[in-house]
Amino acid sequence: MKVLVVGATGTLGTAVTTLLATRHDVVTASRTGRTDVVVDITDPASIAAMYAQVGRVDAVACTAGSVPFKEIGELSREDVESAALNKLLGQVELVRRGLDSVADNGSFTLITGILSGEPVRTGSMSSMANGGVDAFVRGAAVELPRGLRINSVSPTVFTESVEVYDATFPGFPPVDVSAAALAYRRSIEGAQTGQTFRVGW
Amino acid sequence: MKVLVVGATGTLGTAVTTLLATRHDVVTASRTGRTDVVVDITDPASIAAMYAQVGRVDAVACTAGSVPFKEIGELSREDVESAALNKLLGQVELVRRGLDSVADNGSFTLITGILSGEPVRTGSMSSMANGGVDAFVRGAAVELPRGLRINSVSPTVFTESVEVYDATFPGFPPVDVSAAALAYRRSIEGAQTGQTFRVGW
Repeated sequence: MKVLVVGATGTLGTAVTTLLATRHDVVTASRTGRTDVVVDITDPASIAAMYAQVGRVDAVACTAGSVPFKEIGELSREDVESAALNKLLGQVELVRRGLDSVADNGSFTLITGILSGEPVRTGSMSSMANGGVDAFVRGAAVELPRGLRINSVSPTVFTESVEVYDATFPGFPPVDVSAAALAYRRSIEGAQTGQTFRVGW
Repeated sequence: MKVLVVGATGTLGTAVTTLLATRHDVVTASRTGRTDVVVDITDPASIAAMYAQVGRVDAVACTAGSVPFKEIGELSREDVESAALNKLLGQVELVRRGLDSVADNGSFTLITGILSGEPVRTGSMSSMANGGVDAFVRGAAVELPRGLRINSVSPTVFTESVEVYDATFPGFPPVDVSAAALAYRRSIEGAQTGQTFRVGW
């Protein structure tokens, strides 16, 4: 399969790219210049340009999407809009714009995370974005054409990132990022749709 | 209690206002001119002006929030942004801007709906908004100050609206809007926080 990995230079994106490249033709995309294609998922025109450049693919795997971590009383309107435009609408736009680029029976796999269900302080925007994407996946799955499938991968904190996030996720058992990469393979090569694959929780 | 009902002229808003007015001092708000206050929840300045006008309240009950119903392939970027800015970010902004207006141990009650979990065709934006709000409620609940609480009410289709929505919700058992109004009372007068009260599903 030809698989487009969006966010390919991050901790998760690197693991997903490494795993999938052993079995598929992987095209990498990210905001950085260190990938096959440059894309900013907050910019619809950038997403359209990426699909035009990459051409037909069998799967889109998104590992990109950031949100501000702040106490609710500290959130500005800009923080709220940023959370919505990046991890939430950025991934919705990847699907909407990608409908004509993904081959019959292809798939979209989006990234969410544990905060949809298990909240932490400063995490309300992450909860919102994750919950919105997980529910969008359920909603989109019932109407995607041509056998297209869509799932999300919802990991807990990664072993590889636990030092950075330890204070935010106190006592949360971490999971190796390779386990989340496996969930992408499951989504892409499997038959399920409308699912959220929880990893480590 | 002094309760601010946002969206008070809709089917649900009317039922919530009617129920709560028997027990509380209700202040009504909506986009229409037929309420105590006029507010457009997509406009942060309008929300701020509403709180300035209404003053200290004990509870905010939102029954407002619309989303476009279209097949995913028919959604425009404007539709996606409209869904995000109205039912999702509009309600988040009601909470964010209302933090200083709600009295100690007061509450926010937001509206979501069955499509977060039980999808229908043309409903992906509703799924997204509902799932985002339900998860935001969980995230916000763990960090709200001064004993403030927050819940969402997630009804299935209403008996009173079933003629209009019958084709969109084929075979979904409807529930009387009065049952959803009860869930607002439960949220406002009860002790729970971070909950999504499902009504009729």
